[in-house]
Amino acid sequence: MLDPDHLKRLAAIVGEANALTSESDKAPHLREWRDLYHGKTPVVLRPGSVEEVSQILKTANELKLRIVPQGGNTGLVGGQIPDDSSGEIVLSLGRLNKIRKIDADGYTMTVEAGCILEAIHQAAEEVDRIFPLTLGAQGSCQIGGNISTNAGGTAVLAYGNTRELVLGLEVVLATGEIWNGLRSLRKDNTGYDLKQLFIGAEGTLGVITAAVLKLFPKPRDRQVAFVGLSDSHAALALFSQARAKAGPMLTGFELMPRVGIEFCLKHLEGARDPLSEPHPWYVLVELSSGTENASLRDLMEELLGEAFEAGLVQDAALAESIAQGEAFWHLRHGMSEVQREEGGSIKHDVSVPVASVPAFLDKAIAAVEEMVPGCRPVPFGHMGDGNIHFNVSQPVGADKAGFIARWDEMNALVHGIVAEFGGSISAEHGIGRLKRDLLKEVKSELELDMMRRIKVAFDPNGILNPGRVL
Amino acid sequence: MLDPDHLKRLAAIVGEANALTSESDKAPHLREWRDLYHGKTPVVLRPGSVEEVSQILKTANELKLRIVPQGGNTGLVGGQIPDDSSGEIVLSLGRLNKIRKIDADGYTMTVEAGCILEAIHQAAEEVDRIFPLTLGAQGSCQIGGNISTNAGGTAVLAYGNTRELVLGLEVVLATGEIWNGLRSLRKDNTGYDLKQLFIGAEGTLGVITAAVLKLFPKPRDRQVAFVGLSDSHAALALFSQARAKAGPMLTGFELMPRVGIEFCLKHLEGARDPLSEPHPWYVLVELSSGTENASLRDLMEELLGEAFEAGLVQDAALAESIAQGEAFWHLRHGMSEVQREEGGSIKHDVSVPVASVPAFLDKAIAAVEEMVPGCRPVPFGHMGDGNIHFNVSQPVGADKAGFIARWDEMNALVHGIVAEFGGSISAEHGIGRLKRDLLKEVKSELELDMMRRIKVAFDPNGILNPGRVL
Repeated sequence: MLDPDHLKRLAAIVGEANALTSESDKAPHLREWRDLYHGKTPVVLRPGSVEEVSQILKTANELKLRIVPQGGNTGLVGGQIPDDSSGEIVLSLGRLNKIRKIDADGYTMTVEAGCILEAIHQAAEEVDRIFPLTLGAQGSCQIGGNISTNAGGTAVLAYGNTRELVLGLEVVLATGEIWNGLRSLRKDNTGYDLKQLFIGAEGTLGVITAAVLKLFPKPRDRQVAFVGLSDSHAALALFSQARAKAGPMLTGFELMPRVGIEFCLKHLEGARDPLSEPHPWYVLVELSSGTENASLRDLMEELLGEAFEAGLVQDAALAESIAQGEAFWHLRHGMSEVQREEGGSIKHDVSVPVASVPAFLDKAIAAVEEMVPGCRPVPFGHMGDGNIHFNVSQPVGADKAGFIARWDEMNALVHGIVAEFGGSISAEHGIGRLKRDLLKEVKSELELDMMRRIKVAFDPNGILNPGRVL
Repeated sequence: MLDPDHLKRLAAIVGEANALTSESDKAPHLREWRDLYHGKTPVVLRPGSVEEVSQILKTANELKLRIVPQGGNTGLVGGQIPDDSSGEIVLSLGRLNKIRKIDADGYTMTVEAGCILEAIHQAAEEVDRIFPLTLGAQGSCQIGGNISTNAGGTAVLAYGNTRELVLGLEVVLATGEIWNGLRSLRKDNTGYDLKQLFIGAEGTLGVITAAVLKLFPKPRDRQVAFVGLSDSHAALALFSQARAKAGPMLTGFELMPRVGIEFCLKHLEGARDPLSEPHPWYVLVELSSGTENASLRDLMEELLGEAFEAGLVQDAALAESIAQGEAFWHLRHGMSEVQREEGGSIKHDVSVPVASVPAFLDKAIAAVEEMVPGCRPVPFGHMGDGNIHFNVSQPVGADKAGFIARWDEMNALVHGIVAEFGGSISAEHGIGRLKRDLLKEVKSELELDMMRRIKVAFDPNGILNPGRVL
């Protein structure tokens, strides 16, 4: 419970209008869209400047008040939602939403933490550039949250995770001190690269208030193919050939199982099967090029032709128009939401080394099918990054609650197999509250201790997103 | 001075043969090739396993002995050379030189710290892959040093700095604890990304003993052009066009001034001017592609044709063979050594935002020419990264020692201009001993304090490379 005097001090920093205390005003900040996480807070603070963030943290640090930073509230692991104690204050960064600078020649953009990802995309396009980070939530997620969680998405194969897209940061430390690390440099070896600490730290080490992002040339040509395969081993072989042949022009390689396509055909508006016959597995292959000429399409045809001759590919459709390419992507992007229509779904966001994806899938699919006969694994995602969303839908007609009750048991089973392959139990969504206890099972005591040393060095009073990550 | 009992304990860990104490055995480890740094040490320890490194650090930490990690001894800022106190022990990683694993399908390689960069290149080529880090010192530098200094080089434009090329690390901490972070994952958001701490920390936070590196497809086609321009502003405009047009296929964009070419023609074996007339500036443009077809050459011709029509380019030569492409690169790679033949040279390894390179050059060239009339600026390097080696040769016939005596004064002048453009005083070589005092001038007290917090958290007794960086 927040002392009324303390509330008054905090409210004075942002002004009454931006210190939300009524239940209706606070509500949108207290639960996320899946309703998996909800909590309570005495106040949602909405600072309008970096200085206000600084004063809030200075005050919180002095009074030992716990702060939960929040961006677009699209996180999937509960990191941005306060707990039920009413003791955690939500710090909403949404009003810090200015694009401070765009440098097209220098391929950089300086943005505040509260900028919506899609607004950043649009601003980049206006100067004939792209900011490549691409996510399902891009219409509402904020860049500060993307950076704090080192977000992934479908463009990682060619452009890297969010970490690789950040040149500089402005961060308010737990003490309220403002660190100006807003550099626009491609190369800078002057001491420790401090920005790396805050990227992916999920708000536990400081509050990111602004960033310098890398921009990239806008592709002039894009070719998308939808490929049917007999098994995931063929998908790996195709990936190897595609990468060797197209190098950095290979910008997408997404794996999908037949059952996922069937879910889309049943539940996703506008979904059509791009191929005439069903196939056990599919990949969406995308090539992009900085130049408009015939050769990218030739390259795609050559790649698929060789794969067909080698017996890797059963059938393939090349998009004949931008609209058709988008229709292929529509199936891939729809794959998350359609699972909801098929009852309970137990989810895993895992990665393994790319070359181990097929062996992992074979083993994990067999294991969950043995554990819950009739369950329907829907493993899909970023095969080119080794990142599979290993989701498992309940058996047809089974009891949803009974299936979901086995969540932890199935997680343990799948994560055990992930560990055998040297993989990660959180490839792109982070740890937050959801996987905090799991973290202790997959990290060595030494590694956890190293993390704690950093936490203590930067947040000695433990005010920043406590109970998340560590 | 090292206590004889302490020496005995350390020598017992590695064996007498690998605890070098004679002056002749120690000599190669006590000075670097330019002879700018030299020092003294009671012993050079050459561990043959990670466990030996661990025991050495555990012992050193207990006895509070200072350790200077050393790789191929090619660093340019004195970080790897002990001081003159005879109190610093050299830890040479050269015997840890095994390639532990190559995974061609997964595009990764696991190597020990003492592997020579060129040996890594060769091992990658044997499985039809490349490890792109490319440096003048690649025949003798070791990957542990490359990672510890976040080395740059000529392939950063397309592939990033060394930091971007590392997936996992094995590090021995100051306490002797071995952290196994040898992951091969493209995506892993399970807690703080601890490897980032050690990359570029110049051996001050831990000793890197092994790494998982990213491999890339081997380019099938490469086109190299040597372009003459009237000024560096035209070079920036050409860079913007090339990047927009070729996207990730633009793999090299190196700037050189006429005087540098003249130095090469005078002093570099086999050097020929690729163009018939002299031009004030040159750029070497390289395009690479994962596929062999005519279009890469077409693309280069189109790019240069358009630039010529726009008045950006005065003349250009396209390499007609691999040998000719190498001859163009030979000029660029020879540019460092030829400066030695022209007397004293005051050096700066700086970066500014890419779009600011021409304005920076205009201002810095005018400033040094005003400071030392007749001096010959030879600014060259990685324009596409904003990283210029702003070297200044003495006036013809001037006294070398007198010119070199103005090193600090000229550094201050140039670094002041770098600061005006938000640049870095060490783009790729690091801080070491050379720029330690300068660091205090360019970093805020808060940023230095943040670095110190990390240093204290990981090396509380200050045994690891003391006096370097911080």
